[in-house]
Amino acid sequence: MENPITVEVTRGQLVESRHRGLAIVVDAEGKIVFSAGDVDAGVFPRSACKAMQALPLVESGAADAYGFGNRELALACASHSGEPEHVATAAAMLKAAGRDESVLECGAHWSSHQAVLIEQARTLDKPTALHNNCSGKHSGFVCTCCHTGEDPRGYAGFDHPLQQAIRAIMADLTGAVLSRDNCGTDGCSIPTYAVPLIGLARGFGKLATGSGLEPIRAAAARRLINACMAEPFYVAGTRRFCTKLMQVAPGKIFAKTGAEGVFCALLPDKGLSFAVKAEDGATRAAEAMIAALLARHFDEGSAEHTTLTGMSRHGMSNWNGLHVGTIRVTDVLFA
Amino acid sequence: MENPITVEVTRGQLVESRHRGLAIVVDAEGKIVFSAGDVDAGVFPRSACKAMQALPLVESGAADAYGFGNRELALACASHSGEPEHVATAAAMLKAAGRDESVLECGAHWSSHQAVLIEQARTLDKPTALHNNCSGKHSGFVCTCCHTGEDPRGYAGFDHPLQQAIRAIMADLTGAVLSRDNCGTDGCSIPTYAVPLIGLARGFGKLATGSGLEPIRAAAARRLINACMAEPFYVAGTRRFCTKLMQVAPGKIFAKTGAEGVFCALLPDKGLSFAVKAEDGATRAAEAMIAALLARHFDEGSAEHTTLTGMSRHGMSNWNGLHVGTIRVTDVLFA
Repeated sequence: MENPITVEVTRGQLVESRHRGLAIVVDAEGKIVFSAGDVDAGVFPRSACKAMQALPLVESGAADAYGFGNRELALACASHSGEPEHVATAAAMLKAAGRDESVLECGAHWSSHQAVLIEQARTLDKPTALHNNCSGKHSGFVCTCCHTGEDPRGYAGFDHPLQQAIRAIMADLTGAVLSRDNCGTDGCSIPTYAVPLIGLARGFGKLATGSGLEPIRAAAARRLINACMAEPFYVAGTRRFCTKLMQVAPGKIFAKTGAEGVFCALLPDKGLSFAVKAEDGATRAAEAMIAALLARHFDEGSAEHTTLTGMSRHGMSNWNGLHVGTIRVTDVLFA
Repeated sequence: MENPITVEVTRGQLVESRHRGLAIVVDAEGKIVFSAGDVDAGVFPRSACKAMQALPLVESGAADAYGFGNRELALACASHSGEPEHVATAAAMLKAAGRDESVLECGAHWSSHQAVLIEQARTLDKPTALHNNCSGKHSGFVCTCCHTGEDPRGYAGFDHPLQQAIRAIMADLTGAVLSRDNCGTDGCSIPTYAVPLIGLARGFGKLATGSGLEPIRAAAARRLINACMAEPFYVAGTRRFCTKLMQVAPGKIFAKTGAEGVFCALLPDKGLSFAVKAEDGATRAAEAMIAALLARHFDEGSAEHTTLTGMSRHGMSNWNGLHVGTIRVTDVLFA
């Protein structure tokens, strides 16, 4: 099945580049509201599913035992930019469990976001694992192990009890079989499993509705989603797309990006769940797609609709600030 | 016409992302040796055609008048990383013409390459136009104007005599009609014209062979191509793909990237000219494609063939240095 062209990048009066994509929206019962492309094909959710991977932190009681609030829970679901607040919060999470960054298995990297990187270059000799965009998730993993009495060493491995537990949760939520066959290694070294985009959307839907989940899981899921919506800066950072999406309608939109062009989102009040993947892995395409799909569910003329539509079709400027072209979703997303 | 999938990105045992592309190889007579995708569709060459845009610098006599050697000519054809040598050479070019960076119309930006950006952040308050990846091209433009007695002010504009001259050269080389209809504004504010990929490849072929060109243009073209092959660091920079490609077989490969997934290359000794475009604008796809096409024209088992093949199919590591997947060209490029 050919995935349709969902995003175009123009220059002058011509289309310069084209992105193909797959997209799905499901309702509270998991029924398809909108679909484009091969939504049954396996997609690695990458960081888009961090809220699912953070469930043990809450379900185990670790989050309560260590006194974590919305910021810590949002950071556990985050791909953050490595800004000072992100780094300090991850360090504080580890300290609460009596640990430090030496236990983190995510590796270190400079911020992927230019303004933050410039500041880091001026203040750091080199980045640590706390600066890794996944340090909140990994700190949550360590805290979960410490609280349950599991040895955190090797927590990123396929066979570690924590990853086994996460695998069972992901299978439960997405309805997909997860094994070594559809497992890859993520940027931060933990397992990532390819699941059909429709399964990913239905899984996120369950996080919002609690439908079919044990009460403890339903409560933990809603608490994590609410924490992200309450503290969107801690899910991403300054000028980041996830943060901006959630700021469009505070408390009404949950959104999380993943590497290689994945984006998931929720409108919890409407029981709607969204998932998109750019065939080629382009973040700019995934961002435009998710914004366009979200916009459709706000009233035309509302501030939310206007802002989201603007995030799905926006001008591009060059080094002199001149308008040179536009990134815009195609009519495929309005069918 | 659907463009074929030319590059796949794997993770674990699965394909995570797919790039479609168009590619063409022509011989010294401009005949098609290989073709994939819609090579008659208009493509903005962007920075890939800088060697064409640098022709007036040599043809006008400016390069000789100002004593420019291979490094200056390579920099005039470059999308450099803003390393100190690049910046100093652009400044020296302007100084030779009695000008300074205040005349540049390219705008300023931090280096797009992380290691250079970190060094810039530690040593600069902010970047200037000399740090712009196009500063060599723009310095060449200014030098051309100064030598011919043209006022360089407004040299980036569609109607400036220099851009009119470049438009005529590009039309001559590519065989395409260039007008406001297929004109866009490039990142550095000069006009860029969409031309069929096949015209771009044939135009580059003429640079190498001189076929059908006035002697002065043929000589200027060969001098620029030779300068780039002699000083590949000045065409891009440390660890950059253009530089590495030209270092594979010194004096035998010319290669130049352009934004939004364009790559052009020459094997002058074989009279072969190459052009590729990733449909989605991805640089990683264009790089793999051009390396694969070049590899086919070196003997299997040779060091050049091995290195180029490795640049067309290579592993990807995560933050911990673990192998997580592969970027690889598909069989489409070996049809």
